This record gives sequence, C-alpha cells and structure tokens, in this order.
Amino acid sequence: MKAYSELNKEELLALKSQLEAEYQDIKAKGLSLDMSRGKPSVEQLDLAEKMLGIITDNEDVKAENGLDCRNYGAPIGLPEARKLLGDIAGVSADRVILGGNSSLQLMFDTVSRSYSHGVLGSIPWSKLDCVKFLCPVPGYDRHFAVTEYFGVEMINIPMTEDGPDMDLVEKLVSEDPAVKGIWCVPKYSNPQGYVYSDETVRRMASLDPAAEDFRIYWDNAYGIHHLYEEAEKQAQIPDILTECEKAQKPDMVYEFISTSKVSFAGGGISAIISSDANLEQIKEYMSFQTIGNDKLNQLRHVKYFKSLDGVKAHMKKEADILRPKFEAVESILEESLGGLGIGNWTRPLGGYFISFDAMPGCAKEIVVKAKEAGLVLTGAGATYPYGKDPKDSNIRIAPTCPTLSELILAAKVFAVSVKLISAEHLLREM
Amino acid sequence: MKAYSELNKEELLALKSQLEAEYQDIKAKGLSLDMSRGKPSVEQLDLAEKMLGIITDNEDVKAENGLDCRNYGAPIGLPEARKLLGDIAGVSADRVILGGNSSLQLMFDTVSRSYSHGVLGSIPWSKLDCVKFLCPVPGYDRHFAVTEYFGVEMINIPMTEDGPDMDLVEKLVSEDPAVKGIWCVPKYSNPQGYVYSDETVRRMASLDPAAEDFRIYWDNAYGIHHLYEEAEKQAQIPDILTECEKAQKPDMVYEFISTSKVSFAGGGISAIISSDANLEQIKEYMSFQTIGNDKLNQLRHVKYFKSLDGVKAHMKKEADILRPKFEAVESILEESLGGLGIGNWTRPLGGYFISFDAMPGCAKEIVVKAKEAGLVLTGAGATYPYGKDPKDSNIRIAPTCPTLSELILAAKVFAVSVKLISAEHLLREM
Repeated sequence: MKAYSELNKEELLALKSQLEAEYQDIKAKGLSLDMSRGKPSVEQLDLAEKMLGIITDNEDVKAENGLDCRNYGAPIGLPEARKLLGDIAGVSADRVILGGNSSLQLMFDTVSRSYSHGVLGSIPWSKLDCVKFLCPVPGYDRHFAVTEYFGVEMINIPMTEDGPDMDLVEKLVSEDPAVKGIWCVPKYSNPQGYVYSDETVRRMASLDPAAEDFRIYWDNAYGIHHLYEEAEKQAQIPDILTECEKAQKPDMVYEFISTSKVSFAGGGISAIISSDANLEQIKEYMSFQTIGNDKLNQLRHVKYFKSLDGVKAHMKKEADILRPKFEAVESILEESLGGLGIGNWTRPLGGYFISFDAMPGCAKEIVVKAKEAGLVLTGAGATYPYGKDPKDSNIRIAPTCPTLSELILAAKVFAVSVKLISAEHLLREM
Repeated sequence: MKAYSELNKEELLALKSQLEAEYQDIKAKGLSLDMSRGKPSVEQLDLAEKMLGIITDNEDVKAENGLDCRNYGAPIGLPEARKLLGDIAGVSADRVILGGNSSLQLMFDTVSRSYSHGVLGSIPWSKLDCVKFLCPVPGYDRHFAVTEYFGVEMINIPMTEDGPDMDLVEKLVSEDPAVKGIWCVPKYSNPQGYVYSDETVRRMASLDPAAEDFRIYWDNAYGIHHLYEEAEKQAQIPDILTECEKAQKPDMVYEFISTSKVSFAGGGISAIISSDANLEQIKEYMSFQTIGNDKLNQLRHVKYFKSLDGVKAHMKKEADILRPKFEAVESILEESLGGLGIGNWTRPLGGYFISFDAMPGCAKEIVVKAKEAGLVLTGAGATYPYGKDPKDSNIRIAPTCPTLSELILAAKVFAVSVKLISAEHLLREM
C-alpha cells in the first residue's frame, strides 16, 4: 500500500468510500469498547487474591515491632512496609514515607503544601504572582490537572526517546526563578513508554535552578512494570536521589511510587521518597493532616509480597497478561497503518500505555469517529497541559483493561478511524 | 475530710508530708501507665475481628452495583458505604462523601481547600490578612493544630454543659467577617463529654455570619458512642444539616464522622457530610486530589456491619468494655478528691474522655508530678489553642486504652498527684 500522501484525489476518494463502508460495517456491530483508562484488568487484579485474606484474625495484626496495626501509631508507615517500598524504588527505608492508597494524593499534597507553606522555608507559592512548572509532553493528564488546580503556569517541554529536551529544561530552570518544578515519569513514560537515558537522569540531577524551591517531581509509577523478561529489555535508570546527592542537590527531588498497578488500583499503598530535609517537612505536614495511613493494608502488602523478590515474581505474572495485549495492538497498528504515513506509535517495553501520533489536526476527529463506532479513547489533548495539544496529534492508547479479544476489535476500530479521518483530512487540504 | 481551703498552715504541712510519703510509695513501684491518648484498647479492637477476614477471595470484591472494589472508580465512595455512614449520622446517602481512614484528614483538607481556593467562590483565605476561628475550650488539640498550621487566629469560647457560650458565638460570628469557622464536637465533647443542648444546636444553625464563607465544623466523632444502654442516658441532638436547612443556611455546616472508634482506629472509614453546593466543591477538589479512597475497606465495613442496627449492636459491646473504665476512674476520683475543693471532673455518658479541672495554676505541675510516678497524661494546656490554658487548670483524662486494673492504679496516681500539688500550691499562697 502506498503512503496516503502519494495518492491523488481520485485514489483518495475511492479509498475514502471504501473506508466508509468498512467503518459502517464496524459501527453496525454496536460495539462497546474502552481503551481510555490505565486500569488493570480483572485478570491482573485476580493475581493478588491471596492478599485479600492474608489478615483474617486478631493474631495477624501485629507489625514486626509489635505495633497493633488496627490502632493509631506509626504515622509515616510500618518500618517493614517502608522497607518494601524502598526496595521497589531502590532506596533505603529511611528515605521513604508511606501515603494512603494513592500516590497522586502525595503529589497533590506536595503541591498544596508548597502553595500554603512553601518549601523548606521559601515563600509559599500562594504569595507569589507567578509559579511555573515544566511539563514534558505528551504527559500524564492528572499531573497537569494538579498544577492547573493551583493556578500554576505550565510550559510544554518536548519529549524525546531519551526523555525531556534537556537543553530547554536546563535553560528554563536556570534562568527563571518562577519555575518551581517539572513533572517526570522517568521510566516507561505516560503515554509514550519512553525511558529517560542515563544522561537525561544525570542532567536532571545536575540542574542549577534559579529558584531555591525548584523540585523534580519524579513519578516513578512504572519503575518495575516491565513487559519482557529478558534483561536487555528491562529498562534500568540511575537512582535519582543518588544522582542528586552526587550533584550536591540532595533536596532537589521528590520521588513517588505506589502499588496501584502491582496489587490493587484502588487498594494499594503509596510512598514519597526524598532527602532528610524534605522528609522532615512532609512529616510535620502529616502530623497535622492525618492520624496516619491504613497500616492494616500496609501489613497485607508486606505479608503477601514478603520481599522485593516476591514483588518481582508477581510483576512477571502481570507482564504475562499485559505483553500479549501490547503486542496485539502494535501488530494490528502495523498491519493496518504501516507504511501509510498517517501515524506513528510507540512500542514500549513496559508501563501502561502506547502513544499514537496522528497527522497534525486529526486527533480530535479520530477520537470522535472511534467513539461513534463504540470505542472510547482518552480525550485528544488530554496528554497536554490545559488539554491543548498544539498539533492536535497525540492519542493515548490504554491496552491493559480490555480482554485480549476486545482489544483486537478495539485496535481495528481505531485503525479504521485513523485511516478514514486521515483520508478526509488530506482531501480537505487538496 | 475538710476542703483543703479550710485547712490552716499546720494542717496543710502535715497533710503535705503525709501525701509525699504516699506519693513516694507509689513512685517506688516503678509504674508505667498511660492515660494520655484517646485510643481504643486491644479488647475493643478485638471485637471487630470478623471484619478482618470478611473479604478473602476474588468473588468477594464486588459492590452492590457490580463495581470491582479492587480497581479505580467511585471516587466519592461506594453507594452502600455512603448509606451506612449516612445512617450513622442520620442523613441520606446523597449528603455523604467518603474519605480515607481519617476524618481528621477531611477536616484538614477542608481548611486547606478554603485556604487555597476559598469556599464556594469566596476569596481564598491565603489572600486575606486575617482569618479567625472560634474554639470552644477545653477542646480537641488536633482541631486547633490544623487551624494553627494555616495561620488562623483562634479565639477561646467558654464551654458550658449545654455547649459553647452561644451569646459570645453569635456576637463574634455576626460582627466579625474575619471569623470563618467554629470547631464543634457536639455530642460527648472532647474532653468534657458535654452534649450540646437542642437550643445550642438551633442557635448554631441560626447564626447570621458576617462572612459568607463562615462554616460550622461539626466533628460528630462520638455521635453513637454511648456508654449506657438506657434510652434516657443516650444523648440525642437535632441533626445540624436539617436545622441549617430550616434556618435557610443549608451551606453553613460541614459534618465529619468516622469509624475510627467503631471498627479500627487506624483502619476505619470516614465521611464528610454537607449540602449539595458544598459537596460539589469537595467532589471537584477530590477529582484533582486522589484516584478515590480504598473501596475494599469500605466494602469490608458494609459486609461486616450490614446496617445501622449492626453498628449499634457493635457499639453496645464497645460500651460494655468502656463503661466500667469510666466508672472506675470516676469512683476513684470521688473517693480520693470528693469534697476537697481541689478539683472538678466531668461524668460523661459517652465519648472517649473525662475532663478534670484542677485549682488554677496547678495543671502543669500535676502532669509533671504524675509523670515522675510513671503515669503519662495528656500535656496540660493541650485542650486549648496554642497549648495555652489561661488558667493552667484543665487536664484531659483518656480512660479507654489501659486495662481496667492499670486504670485503677493510674487514677490513684493521678489523685495523689492532684492532692500533693494542690497542698503545695495552697501553702505557697499563704
């Protein structure tokens, strides 16, 4: 098949009517498919069944230090649970404070605290005229939503396969004291699945910010979410805390992790990881904010996973479920769209998403077209601050939640929608 | 025994040396007792054992509407869990949004949100020079800590057996637009165990605030925490939401409840209860803040308690454990201190605390003296904003956590400490 751009008007018109017929056939099926949300599938959730019932009686509720997990106490988390999440992140337990079931909330709290109380004694952002965040794009909509909620001005930073454009990051961070943070998903980024290169991580840790309260918001959501078992296909990145320490900027990073995509999406545990000074401020905040998080759930995680090895064994089973789904979508995209010059997509080795770039100006229309045929996609633009993709090109594909057979159907609906809208787009431009 | 104030110097000196001997005998025992924290005892926590194991396999995880509680979704809580907490509070489920394991966090969030985003469109408190809260005293230290953390100026309001001094509350709320809130524990107040009278509740609901963003922070922590079974000993108060609606001020109250002292102190569920308009703002906030709270734990509560009747049956068992503890403390205080004119204490019909008022100027010394003999009490002053009890008189007694035998010992240590410090105090004043 020729690239669409090489087709003349007659060829395109013929193609369009053929695609329309194809699309109507699919639409007539009355499908109800969803590739919009990065949710684990039932099959994945079922894997952790034994965690559900791992605490059943009054003898089971003690932490290693004897603490009764049903009662108040241990506001920053059980030591053994802090160790488990530290092991997952590759840091020691004393770098870890546990949150509740949502690492997003730890990020929200961190922005909210900076807004109301500042960062280690700096001026609270609520007292400043302008606060800016750098947002590698495409990125995670809920990150951008948090900063938007607090009135932060967001600046798009282009992503590359090696991470954010560091030349631009370095320039903005060092020149503008209003730049207070950058949102990062360093491994298997959302939505592209890109992995920051070692150089990117080191340049990030070596930033020389104009603002003393500039922080890297390092959302390591997919740090252990590999799709493949082969060592060379499992991304490893330098530990950002270590790199920041080496660069004499130990306080410059907050790292966030959770088990939302390890145990249960709604019933996992989360952690914020940082330097002593940052952790002290977080502890102080938490001492006003809460009586501490649910230690019974922390204990369930420790009893079920036992150790990092237990977590890794579990993640291998997760990968066995997810890998065929990613591969199915990629192979349908390749079959249907390969060589047509109307879209590019990523082939991640881990994480939760595939990123698709349509021809500029087509993403919104594709999402609408797919929806009319019964396929819900993440809204076009959602991967950009303020929901505004300047090229109207990026679409996030979330292949985890549907069953494999649903997913195959969904990918086909998607591909036809892309082709039809692309043909229409080219015709309009002639 | 005569009142201490009627003793002459010789009598007081004799008494003092007798009390010192008594105190030294107790101190020599090397006790380690704690009446400082409002924590449930192990025996209480053991009551909910069956909740621990009520969800054990993949078949157990569905909500009534079919939602998989392990996954994302239902950000404001499971409908059946909202109903259960609504039933506890005496309101319909649609008035209820669930929080995590800590109602304190819902209060913190509410103050934090008002600080950063204002209340229903009013000016955010961060943009105001002065924000004030009314604080009925003695009261709950963690309430005062939240407002102190956000720089709120706190104004003491004397408590009476019928609730806060409403003349003063009405005056300040209607005259001063900087007054944005009042902290209330309307039933079995912390620490006195007082119950707001119907008139107090109605006057509260009929307040005519100078500030449009004034809100009543109604922490109904002990709404169902009766110590006695007899109907006439179970306090009932009018529903504040209904009263505010009647008074044409539907948006003037946020109510907070939790199961921290029903199921598990560290693993309960919580709720914020309010008007449609307030709930809309809270929902919006939560949509940025979190992926939703732990629905598995909500489901555990619903499956275990089943209904309000189930909760009440459970609370009767709690009362059977707590009642003898409260009565033991009260009877030792009566035996040891009755008629001496050196202290007054409350005899609550519910809740978690007994409040003790020593002679002015004695509370701090009593707490120190008790500590030297191995009894930890809540710090004197903790029941007042900024930790400052202007009379240095109030001491909060928390009788729930120690065993009955520990408690009897603790009450005796306390009584001796009160007597000794009082005698010394009177001698100094001669």
